[in-house]
Amino acid sequence: MSSSSAHTYKQAGVDIHEAASLVDDIGVLVKRTQQKRKLANPFGLFAAAYDLSAYKHPIILTGCDGVGTKIELLLKHDQLEAAGKDLVAMNVNDVLTTGADPIMFLDYVGIPKIQKTQITRIIAGMTEYLEACNCILAGGETAEMPGMVPEGMVELSGFAIGACEKEDLLDPGTIAAGDVLIGWPSAGFHANGFSLVRRIIEKEKLQFSEDEMRTLLLPTLLYHEQPAALKAAGIRPRAMAHITGGGLPENLGRMFLKRGLGANLRIPFWQNDVVQKVLRHADPKDAIDTFNMGLGWVAIVSPADADKALACGQNAKIIGEMDTSAEVRVEIV
Amino acid sequence: MSSSSAHTYKQAGVDIHEAASLVDDIGVLVKRTQQKRKLANPFGLFAAAYDLSAYKHPIILTGCDGVGTKIELLLKHDQLEAAGKDLVAMNVNDVLTTGADPIMFLDYVGIPKIQKTQITRIIAGMTEYLEACNCILAGGETAEMPGMVPEGMVELSGFAIGACEKEDLLDPGTIAAGDVLIGWPSAGFHANGFSLVRRIIEKEKLQFSEDEMRTLLLPTLLYHEQPAALKAAGIRPRAMAHITGGGLPENLGRMFLKRGLGANLRIPFWQNDVVQKVLRHADPKDAIDTFNMGLGWVAIVSPADADKALACGQNAKIIGEMDTSAEVRVEIV
Repeated sequence: MSSSSAHTYKQAGVDIHEAASLVDDIGVLVKRTQQKRKLANPFGLFAAAYDLSAYKHPIILTGCDGVGTKIELLLKHDQLEAAGKDLVAMNVNDVLTTGADPIMFLDYVGIPKIQKTQITRIIAGMTEYLEACNCILAGGETAEMPGMVPEGMVELSGFAIGACEKEDLLDPGTIAAGDVLIGWPSAGFHANGFSLVRRIIEKEKLQFSEDEMRTLLLPTLLYHEQPAALKAAGIRPRAMAHITGGGLPENLGRMFLKRGLGANLRIPFWQNDVVQKVLRHADPKDAIDTFNMGLGWVAIVSPADADKALACGQNAKIIGEMDTSAEVRVEIV
Repeated sequence: MSSSSAHTYKQAGVDIHEAASLVDDIGVLVKRTQQKRKLANPFGLFAAAYDLSAYKHPIILTGCDGVGTKIELLLKHDQLEAAGKDLVAMNVNDVLTTGADPIMFLDYVGIPKIQKTQITRIIAGMTEYLEACNCILAGGETAEMPGMVPEGMVELSGFAIGACEKEDLLDPGTIAAGDVLIGWPSAGFHANGFSLVRRIIEKEKLQFSEDEMRTLLLPTLLYHEQPAALKAAGIRPRAMAHITGGGLPENLGRMFLKRGLGANLRIPFWQNDVVQKVLRHADPKDAIDTFNMGLGWVAIVSPADADKALACGQNAKIIGEMDTSAEVRVEIV
């Protein structure tokens, strides 16, 4: 029997009807991500279903990531759409490195209190990127956690699933000495190293105009065109890498150091005035081990494919070659 | 050139080497989840790969969830293994409702500062459940976010992927009036409704012994044995439901209300002294719309299968039948 002194869920700070109305709003955005691919869900299922029957020997690929401490600056400067794009790109790019197509993405959003406009803007950013790479926004969880997530904060994590035919899965084990490394530009720091960026801004009392801050916070680029262009040019890369936290040394090294291979990289000076305002206060070696240094995507190809690969996507450049040094050396030239 | 005044990543509160050492520790636990199923990863890949070639018409299923505000109590009472189990069960159970086998799980952990023992205990809980249902811990992200996640807090979210043959995917569209609902017990509140639970504990100044608190915080049961037993008994359920936030009305209703079907449920009084200490302060209707009320798993089966289904898993009971009322009525008897 209901009584006025009994506790309800709404009093506890959770409004189920507000949450349900949010689901309707998001539904419109979600539909945009199901133009080329569609879920195979019977009505009422508790999980998102996708039919892989068309694949002969399907391999699925998956990864999970967040946007790290960049979220604080994104929220402070009202870059909610960029936050959504960062979340998608951080996950989808990892799937794209394998040679697979991204097919489904799920997001987890933790907030102190549901604010429809805020969440809708984050999801609008997500769906813009997802639509671009034909990846379905297959689900997600918006967790209202009054008292657990700090006021004004948004916790974001994401998760992508890709699929490809077994024969199309790239194998970093095929990388050999003499192979050529091709790099494509990043848009800025993307979503890595922001603990260091924030510390430098604070300690050095750096000032940025709102324009400069938007540049500093540009979302991680989505690298779906590079693998597609390489494939269209008939090139099967040895491997591809998404350059995130750990920079070029870690993200490349993990693919070949244990086999005694190394890479000798000569990369151009990072022409980005806003980024350099921060970067000149960082320890140079630490910068190389933390930031993408202007290169967000790298493909390793056979020497015979290097010229053709350079024509794939905009502003590709040769940044070095594989050797047997068992280390990744990065020189800025 | 490095200089003593330049900022490093470690000064910014992020220790990459500590993080790498954590990865080694977790590796031992992860191996336990790859006894029956194995990843198909070539060395060095940026995403976890799983080979579905053995399936004729593979469907993959996926969902995403966290443990909500229960995490605060779990941390306060040092129930880290339970937190890991809750995270797995909240996700894997959703996949299990579809008739699929869970094959991969990924976790996202956001913390102010990496504490190896803390994370290892959470992951030990996860791997215990994952090993039980032969689901691979395929990856995850541990994000160290000094200054963003409150001190002493842990943000947890998880993602599960399942797979099944197309013909084995359950279809809630087959539910019909006259079908029988079978329920299996929950261990407690599981990981839902804790905003309300916490509010009641606080406002009513409820006191619990540490034993009682452990009972209150028992992890969500993993319902992998129920679908397996139904399958072994030759029963194809119309549908199965994991009873989480929204309780029996929402979690059952989503599968059939839109088709004009309803369910008439008579459920037993929830025999759990610790749960009842909280429950008697909740608005009774709100309780039914929020908590699992002692039933964490429901299968809807044809009347002809009801008796056989009752023998599947422990303590199953008939809780009601489908009708054409277009509503879910719950009476406690």
